Amino acid sequence: MSGSTFGTIFKMATWGESHGNGIGVVVDGCPSGLPLSEEDIQVYLDRRKPGTSKFATQRKEGDLVEIISGVFEGRTTGTPIAMLVRNMDQRSRDYSEIADYYRPGHADLNFDVKYGFRDYRGGGRSSGRETIARVAAGAVACKLLKSLGVTLTTYTKSIGPVEMNAERFDPEEINRNPFHMPDPVAAGEAAAYLQECMRNQNSSGGVIECIIRNFPQGVGEPVFEKLDANLAKAVMSIGAVKGFEIGDGFAAARSTGLTNNDPFTVDAAGKITKATNHAGGILGGISDGSAIILRAAVKPTPSIAAPQMSVNRSGEAQEIRIKGRHDPVIVPRAVVVVESMAAITLIDMLFQSMTSRLDDIVEFFK
Amino acid sequence: MSGSTFGTIFKMATWGESHGNGIGVVVDGCPSGLPLSEEDIQVYLDRRKPGTSKFATQRKEGDLVEIISGVFEGRTTGTPIAMLVRNMDQRSRDYSEIADYYRPGHADLNFDVKYGFRDYRGGGRSSGRETIARVAAGAVACKLLKSLGVTLTTYTKSIGPVEMNAERFDPEEINRNPFHMPDPVAAGEAAAYLQECMRNQNSSGGVIECIIRNFPQGVGEPVFEKLDANLAKAVMSIGAVKGFEIGDGFAAARSTGLTNNDPFTVDAAGKITKATNHAGGILGGISDGSAIILRAAVKPTPSIAAPQMSVNRSGEAQEIRIKGRHDPVIVPRAVVVVESMAAITLIDMLFQSMTSRLDDIVEFFK
Amino acid sequence: MSGSTFGTIFKMATWGESHGNGIGVVVDGCPSGLPLSEEDIQVYLDRRKPGTSKFATQRKEGDLVEIISGVFEGRTTGTPIAMLVRNMDQRSRDYSEIADYYRPGHADLNFDVKYGFRDYRGGGRSSGRETIARVAAGAVACKLLKSLGVTLTTYTKSIGPVEMNAERFDPEEINRNPFHMPDPVAAGEAAAYLQECMRNQNSSGGVIECIIRNFPQGVGEPVFEKLDANLAKAVMSIGAVKGFEIGDGFAAARSTGLTNNDPFTVDAAGKITKATNHAGGILGGISDGSAIILRAAVKPTPSIAAPQMSVNRSGEAQEIRIKGRHDPVIVPRAVVVVESMAAITLIDMLFQSMTSRLDDIVEFFK
Amino acid sequence: MSGSTFGTIFKMATWGESHGNGIGVVVDGCPSGLPLSEEDIQVYLDRRKPGTSKFATQRKEGDLVEIISGVFEGRTTGTPIAMLVRNMDQRSRDYSEIADYYRPGHADLNFDVKYGFRDYRGGGRSSGRETIARVAAGAVACKLLKSLGVTLTTYTKSIGPVEMNAERFDPEEINRNPFHMPDPVAAGEAAAYLQECMRNQNSSGGVIECIIRNFPQGVGEPVFEKLDANLAKAVMSIGAVKGFEIGDGFAAARSTGLTNNDPFTVDAAGKITKATNHAGGILGGISDGSAIILRAAVKPTPSIAAPQMSVNRSGEAQEIRIKGRHDPVIVPRAVVVVESMAAITLIDMLFQSMTSRLDDIVEFFK
Repeated sequence: MSGSTFGTIFKMATWGESHGNGIGVVVDGCPSGLPLSEEDIQVYLDRRKPGTSKFATQRKEGDLVEIISGVFEGRTTGTPIAMLVRNMDQRSRDYSEIADYYRPGHADLNFDVKYGFRDYRGGGRSSGRETIARVAAGAVACKLLKSLGVTLTTYTKSIGPVEMNAERFDPEEINRNPFHMPDPVAAGEAAAYLQECMRNQNSSGGVIECIIRNFPQGVGEPVFEKLDANLAKAVMSIGAVKGFEIGDGFAAARSTGLTNNDPFTVDAAGKITKATNHAGGILGGISDGSAIILRAAVKPTPSIAAPQMSVNRSGEAQEIRIKGRHDPVIVPRAVVVVESMAAITLIDMLFQSMTSRLDDIVEFFK
Repeated sequence: MSGSTFGTIFKMATWGESHGNGIGVVVDGCPSGLPLSEEDIQVYLDRRKPGTSKFATQRKEGDLVEIISGVFEGRTTGTPIAMLVRNMDQRSRDYSEIADYYRPGHADLNFDVKYGFRDYRGGGRSSGRETIARVAAGAVACKLLKSLGVTLTTYTKSIGPVEMNAERFDPEEINRNPFHMPDPVAAGEAAAYLQECMRNQNSSGGVIECIIRNFPQGVGEPVFEKLDANLAKAVMSIGAVKGFEIGDGFAAARSTGLTNNDPFTVDAAGKITKATNHAGGILGGISDGSAIILRAAVKPTPSIAAPQMSVNRSGEAQEIRIKGRHDPVIVPRAVVVVESMAAITLIDMLFQSMTSRLDDIVEFFK
Repeated sequence: MSGSTFGTIFKMATWGESHGNGIGVVVDGCPSGLPLSEEDIQVYLDRRKPGTSKFATQRKEGDLVEIISGVFEGRTTGTPIAMLVRNMDQRSRDYSEIADYYRPGHADLNFDVKYGFRDYRGGGRSSGRETIARVAAGAVACKLLKSLGVTLTTYTKSIGPVEMNAERFDPEEINRNPFHMPDPVAAGEAAAYLQECMRNQNSSGGVIECIIRNFPQGVGEPVFEKLDANLAKAVMSIGAVKGFEIGDGFAAARSTGLTNNDPFTVDAAGKITKATNHAGGILGGISDGSAIILRAAVKPTPSIAAPQMSVNRSGEAQEIRIKGRHDPVIVPRAVVVVESMAAITLIDMLFQSMTSRLDDIVEFFK
Repeated sequence: MSGSTFGTIFKMATWGESHGNGIGVVVDGCPSGLPLSEEDIQVYLDRRKPGTSKFATQRKEGDLVEIISGVFEGRTTGTPIAMLVRNMDQRSRDYSEIADYYRPGHADLNFDVKYGFRDYRGGGRSSGRETIARVAAGAVACKLLKSLGVTLTTYTKSIGPVEMNAERFDPEEINRNPFHMPDPVAAGEAAAYLQECMRNQNSSGGVIECIIRNFPQGVGEPVFEKLDANLAKAVMSIGAVKGFEIGDGFAAARSTGLTNNDPFTVDAAGKITKATNHAGGILGGISDGSAIILRAAVKPTPSIAAPQMSVNRSGEAQEIRIKGRHDPVIVPRAVVVVESMAAITLIDMLFQSMTSRLDDIVEFFK
């Protein structure tokens, strides 16, 4: 089955393996007239690039993107945008060993069961490098959203037990520390915690939060194509994500109606709005005009240097030690991936909502 | 946009409003040869039926299902199965008031913004009655799964602050108490908590857990069509669900690689298996042969009798009191809805996985 | 696999068998605000109703439609429109024989091979009665197109060797004769030809033509989602259709570039237009503003009273004589089915085209 | 809307413009274990390559393919196969003129209307070079079909008025003449006819026929996803195709039931088969075990050197003469494109048919 294609109106097909010839994406369904250059894409790719701090893998990849189609005289033409990133630093010898055993927390065994064999080099298709394609497409979606006035703010909310303090929230801080945490104090604590993890050949998980502002009201379809349901699928499709929340999320399950309901009120401009935002900007699967708030729970990097028990392809138990260059925490590099998947989903759902009302359609074709 | 259609190979299209003529579903893509009767469906519908305890709405609906097509001589024919439940106890006068104002926590305002007007009777399409159609389709999916040896166990894990104790877990208990909690002590505490909520004209949220056993390994597609991503969308598409987890979920974000990784081991039968199951049965988006564990966070019923601040259609603030017959907690009735959405997704993904390997396909067409 | 669902944005799921409890359709994705009543649908259903002339099956079916959802206070709400037609005159005993053998020109054997058994009563799902659901959905699509100023004219172009004469084309005539031929002379010849067929216990094929006027330019997507490709699938999905053409169709294959190219010119209003219309209103898969012209080749009714050679379920050759009430030609009743499938496709593609240009989208969300 | 993505289980996303950096395709959903090399693809690409005879454009393109992903150690891995052909001989100056006017028979004007501007170089995305991507994906589909024992034979049936004689049919001849006609006498007449066309700065259309043998019975879904309906869409999505037929096609419309019905009979091996094949291998949208026969009507190349009347972007009428290197007939080069689209559709439908019967599914997962 075709699992590497995503979206309905704004669609992407991604491809590529960690240690193959490259990684890429075809964006099919981008409207014409968007100014787009390789620089626009590169800015997003650089946010997930390896080797930018000691808390990330030391693999050296420029991750330089080439736009091969769909742009003419600096603007999108409405036809598919193909983007390609060649792999450079494929130190595959690091991985020759893992051909023979199954790494805990990884999909190695599942790939062998499902496909009969696997491209074991660096995890092949199941590697985090696959997300390059998502981010390249996400950069296009973000630029489309921007042209509609929508903004996304995405950051690390927690690393292991270290959580940011909402009262110290400073958006400028997000790009100042290697963790993309909007709270400098928490970022400092996270650094200490991660150094401890690294000393123990261990790794950490964390939580990513994304806030979308100025998104039009009325987007999202009732029943199955709810905006939050699609955001959930998009974000949960990212490799290490194990949980997803909208608004108060799991806390809402412990709350009561009187607390959790957001009263409606009328703002200064006469517009109906919500006095609070426990709902996280979505009611009945439809955007309600408030900020959309979502969170993703990211598991600890499964590739750790400490010895672990596993099984080899002959079915024998063996102690293994994973070599290679791995991130002690992938959360900071995954921030832009969450933002990308959210943006792609939002633009697709926004396009889908254009046919809700016959009077709008009649007006459109006049 | 078409938001009431779900699935790729096993597909359903649902329809119907709370106080219209009925609710129904077309299941398109069910294989031929499944013995199926209205009784098979009714058992599932009865699990979500209103009026079965004092902790559920007192609306009286038999919710009797008619199978109109797709079954011949007691077995499915491979063609679409249309199922219809007529609405009976449409006490629409209870709802005439809500035509004029927007209920907090509901999609009323969003529907007006999106569609220009709405069927306000009982929430129309955004009512929880819509889930009847999901459950009818879910009953078919569950029966298909059963014929493949797969079992689903779904129950209430918590109501408000009252959480079940895993050590008291008793599957027999699930259908013994009105909360479908597998822990009789917690069920008793939940009853007390809910009576307090009802006294205060308030409502409660809760968490539902679903465990799937004996599901084949190798199901789920890499990248976007991950099994967990599709389960997330399916479950998050249920009205009041605000959060979703697989395995350790948000707790994994606070964990470390050494703890969270599940070591591989070899069982007595020589099969490779996981020694623990923090992953919740899915690695790299693919089922790994362990039990699949998922959780849904359900928000408190937004329809509460206590006075709330809202706005009417003329844009004036007003205090409202919601009449009608409402559940103080929808979690117990949503248990079978979560199970249904999980089952539908599992059978669809299972079918999708049949084309993973060329040798299997060649064998199939021999 | 789910074969009874059609469309991307404007979607329908159909169900029902010839001699089961009924036939129906769920239209998912109809915008809100369309005035819609059962009478609107009935007008279209009556155009394909049996028993209206001696050249059609004498089965007596009122084919009365019930709209069960999606309409409130006389207008569509934007939620799914479920429509149901109960079967009445199920004279199944006529069909008990065909349980045992395979009718030439029918799908009986294929259903047995594919599904292991079949609902043999009147052909079950493969009966022409299935098209009731298409016509009910088509009526909605036609009404949407009408509100955009688009008109469809569909008629019988030929029956067997009898072809209409374009110079005698009279649109008023279409509903004056039982063949829906716009040429009264040809209609007379067709009557004589069909009576000859009936005398010989034989049947006839024919060609249906559909002309769509005032359809917006620029609809249809390059490459795979061409407007003509989607029209082809829609029309070829009708039971007995064996060929499809746009514009000059197969005649274009015998033509030359100098003849077949339509020169561009400027009309009185200053609009660029085509001086001729060999292309049939579509260039590069995109509507070009001229009338869209399509044709469907319909095979002769396979159910004929004359003796035929066939094979029974035990694999023995036998001479068969098909009983039951059959149309000597299905072309006249299929006219409204072709129109319906065209309309459904056109409205879906029209909706799809709304996201072609970013400037339009920005304007839409202002 | 995303128009460059095709297929449900076996899916492709294509991209690229005639005079951009290249053309490519991502094949998503190919099962693992298929031996695949660039040579396998190149053989198919060479069948549509320009410059191979005086009856084809003299543009010089090696059309060399690179497989960038999805193949490991010589076999497909089950993950997306990305393939890339760089453009080489982009003589764009030939096209600078056509920026200013609209070529008759081309989509230039439609692109401007739809997208606001266009990549005019060689037709951009609407160029026939787009079909490179289809053929690369088609080569994969053909190899999959071959591993299931299915063969496709595709050839030119007619060029302009010159039709092959079925009695002279010689499959060996197909690759012996530049027209891929299986009849050497007709090929000679076609050469003479085309030289006359070229002398007159004119062009010709033609008909392509494809015969598929040994395709499994029971493939294709009832109602909308009929095998013939999907083949129709696939083939009609090819640039210049204006008509499509299955079996007797339009001739069936002039036939009678007694002639057109194929009697069932029992072959020597005891298998039920059809004595004739007017149906072209498909009944009720499902393959019936006989050879599948389809035909595509291809219009004359619209780019001709003779002067034509057109309109420029300022809306002024002008006489134009199209420069550049054009095929006097595209039929011979389109043969492999028709074969590719048929193969892609057949493999996709074949995969879809694997879930028809529950007993097969239960057996599969044992």
